[in-house]
Amino acid sequence: MATELKGLTKRSENYSQWYNELVVKADLAEQAPVRGCMVIKPYGYAIWEKMHEVLDAKFKETGHQNAYFPLLIPKSYLSREAEHVEGFAKECAVVTHYRLKNAEDGSGVIVDPAAKLEEELIIRPTSETIIWSTYKNWIKSYRDLPILINQWANVMRWEMRPRLFLRTAEFLWQEGHTAHATREEAEAEARKMQNVYADFAQNWMALPVVRGVKSETERFAGALDTYTIESMTQDGKALQCGTSHFLGQNFAKAFEVQFVDRENKLDYVWATSWGVSTRLMGALIMAHSDDNGLVLPPKLAPIQVVIVPIYKNAEDLQKIDARVASIVDGLKARGISVKYDNADNKRPGFKFADYEVKGVPVRLVLGMRDLENGTLEVMRRDTLEKESMPIEGIEDRVVTLLDEIQENIFRKALSYRDERMVKVDTYDEFKEQIENGRFVLAHWDGTPETEAKIKEETKATIRCIPMDFDTTEDGKCIYTGKPSSRRVLFARSY
Amino acid sequence: MATELKGLTKRSENYSQWYNELVVKADLAEQAPVRGCMVIKPYGYAIWEKMHEVLDAKFKETGHQNAYFPLLIPKSYLSREAEHVEGFAKECAVVTHYRLKNAEDGSGVIVDPAAKLEEELIIRPTSETIIWSTYKNWIKSYRDLPILINQWANVMRWEMRPRLFLRTAEFLWQEGHTAHATREEAEAEARKMQNVYADFAQNWMALPVVRGVKSETERFAGALDTYTIESMTQDGKALQCGTSHFLGQNFAKAFEVQFVDRENKLDYVWATSWGVSTRLMGALIMAHSDDNGLVLPPKLAPIQVVIVPIYKNAEDLQKIDARVASIVDGLKARGISVKYDNADNKRPGFKFADYEVKGVPVRLVLGMRDLENGTLEVMRRDTLEKESMPIEGIEDRVVTLLDEIQENIFRKALSYRDERMVKVDTYDEFKEQIENGRFVLAHWDGTPETEAKIKEETKATIRCIPMDFDTTEDGKCIYTGKPSSRRVLFARSY
Repeated sequence: MATELKGLTKRSENYSQWYNELVVKADLAEQAPVRGCMVIKPYGYAIWEKMHEVLDAKFKETGHQNAYFPLLIPKSYLSREAEHVEGFAKECAVVTHYRLKNAEDGSGVIVDPAAKLEEELIIRPTSETIIWSTYKNWIKSYRDLPILINQWANVMRWEMRPRLFLRTAEFLWQEGHTAHATREEAEAEARKMQNVYADFAQNWMALPVVRGVKSETERFAGALDTYTIESMTQDGKALQCGTSHFLGQNFAKAFEVQFVDRENKLDYVWATSWGVSTRLMGALIMAHSDDNGLVLPPKLAPIQVVIVPIYKNAEDLQKIDARVASIVDGLKARGISVKYDNADNKRPGFKFADYEVKGVPVRLVLGMRDLENGTLEVMRRDTLEKESMPIEGIEDRVVTLLDEIQENIFRKALSYRDERMVKVDTYDEFKEQIENGRFVLAHWDGTPETEAKIKEETKATIRCIPMDFDTTEDGKCIYTGKPSSRRVLFARSY
Repeated sequence: MATELKGLTKRSENYSQWYNELVVKADLAEQAPVRGCMVIKPYGYAIWEKMHEVLDAKFKETGHQNAYFPLLIPKSYLSREAEHVEGFAKECAVVTHYRLKNAEDGSGVIVDPAAKLEEELIIRPTSETIIWSTYKNWIKSYRDLPILINQWANVMRWEMRPRLFLRTAEFLWQEGHTAHATREEAEAEARKMQNVYADFAQNWMALPVVRGVKSETERFAGALDTYTIESMTQDGKALQCGTSHFLGQNFAKAFEVQFVDRENKLDYVWATSWGVSTRLMGALIMAHSDDNGLVLPPKLAPIQVVIVPIYKNAEDLQKIDARVASIVDGLKARGISVKYDNADNKRPGFKFADYEVKGVPVRLVLGMRDLENGTLEVMRRDTLEKESMPIEGIEDRVVTLLDEIQENIFRKALSYRDERMVKVDTYDEFKEQIENGRFVLAHWDGTPETEAKIKEETKATIRCIPMDFDTTEDGKCIYTGKPSSRRVLFARSY
């Protein structure tokens, strides 16, 4: 699994190419032989595993349990909820047969025409339909509610322009599907999970996000409200990182899921669904990394500290090994993931470049002179600053340093984002700022028609109606001049 | 999610029906609306999550990393390895189209005939082919080896006679796929992972297994050797719990994966693959459970201890709540998963039956008289024995009790299995013992023809050539009378 380290395109030259190259050079993922699908390599998967672990704990803390529902969904289920099918049914992988047989000419295997399914099956693009068809049998009374279930799964949407992590035909995700007795409870759940996502993004991914509500156009197909968290990439686009949907009674009605409430009346069940996916990997890479490679927040880095020895011969190495052993033990005892790379078949320079491109937050280098002086060289990946420090007490210093890096990465991303968030009041200014890669707060007349025209002319969409800051004020729609009571957030997006 | 507790069929009446009912009544899983697929419910999934967690740690301890490969495999890949396609290509879900469209008559959605794939894609029944087509790009030199990768994934095999957990069209599993520079190293890896599985089965699932090697007929399609662990169900059948395959250079040759070795010569890479699946859930249920429901080994039980209060009024309950709080804290501090069920809408009798059918290892019951006496009632699920004990010190007593239960369940299963393992020397005796549900050690002439005839006549197959005890001795094949140098293990199987 050799990594080609040289020649990473600079962000300023071609941001898009920089990203594509970085994903491969940092050994995170690669294109699979199947169109639009990816292979997530061990280093990339280790980051996803950490995300999974942290999120899973948060879901459980908030009362959710995991379960597993089938990969395949009968085609007819998709038509049950009218808006849902419009939004999702179109680009799906369709299973039509269940058997292969040997070709008569011995050329390989062919699909057995005798094994055609009566009803085609769809590989889940999302699981509302299969899950609500199941909940129907689980829910009779308010006593059976709430149901608070999450599923970790793979899903498939036949993307026409796939990109590693950001948009792939198959991706990994979690999807929460909850059922409630009241509208209020379901709405509170949807907002709660949006907050769980925002907390994870900010405190683990070091990713500042704008929390908001989607416009009708950008809403999940079948939802009454979609709550979102939106991050900014270094080319000034928005990236939707996670969404949480208040589904009202739409799916309950589509699948006839009724319950007897406390007053002994029959009512439809209220629903939410919410999800984040391997797309978060794309958001993470885009937010912090630089022209030297990946920059990872320490809390999600598979390797938090790498130690590289510099030596001339086996005797020297043995001495360094002996000294490093106790440093490794000390770091591990503090819960730090550390790798001592004393492999003899790679030069230090190669190792430096490799761990730099892989975004290991802290690098310690120890040579013979260091050993004599009781020092080592500490490099932090976020600033690339090097400093000589005493070996004595280095373990505690590293703990502090990792915290500092985590915070610094977040603050850097936050000020980058804040500097690029602007208010505009004319359409000309709007177009200019969108072209400059800005998050634009502007007045809008509230109609899907205006939204569509702005999108057509500028490729900017309404990312959300922000919840983190008050945008209420009287103004005029930048496009139609009609009155507006609040600004909304526009940006181009991934 | 109400559970119907009454009327579990007795094992002696109809073992198969007992199993099917138990899986549903214990809230583990249910049939999905898609043929042959299952919904794994939260309680069942929680057990699988524990299995996942423990196994994953063992894989990492033995040097493996997780990664993720695509769900869909180009049809032509399956034909590359000749034996593999014979064994696996046949009953697969086949994706032929990638889009749906609205039916013109408004009746719903139909498959868009314009969106037909050039080459059909198969939902992975196992991933050797897609993984080895990827390894081809990762491996150039012995320095790139070994590759020690595991994947947690869903796979699909179109089963004709599906059964919850034991044989479902879609199931969850892990599949290890390793690449090595030498034959010896690959063989050692395959045996190592068989041992990891055996250790997990015995020490976590409390499941005695016979380790062994498969006969040529029963080998994985494409393997040179298949190492297996086989458990015994209470109806005396064998259940293959996990397999580890030494694949030789078959897949490397099929996908042209060569490397430059230390002597600078080009050679094909050596491979293994190994897996366990949600089938382990079936093995677990079948091994220990009784006519009252599930019996779970404490180490895998999602709830290890349940506490049920007995009270007449809210005032009493408040007193019990207060006393129980410190017991709960004490148990949690000892790493024990405990549930205090003081829900007011269910009677104690209902709770008792529910936790019994769900196999919670230890039940503590606390009434007002107990509170006065400083005692509580302790029931262990494995023996159903009840005992009154002092509340003082109960936390440590429970720790010991859980260990005792874990060990007792294993010993019980072991003696059950050992009592039903017999040596026979004639075919008549063989047929009788197979009919009686025995593991039969018998001489066999080593030919697939004899194996096939015995299977046809008795439904017994060679489960393995055992490795845990020496079966080497001169004898005569029970079927043909030809000379044999060792006994092999025959049984009917799931």
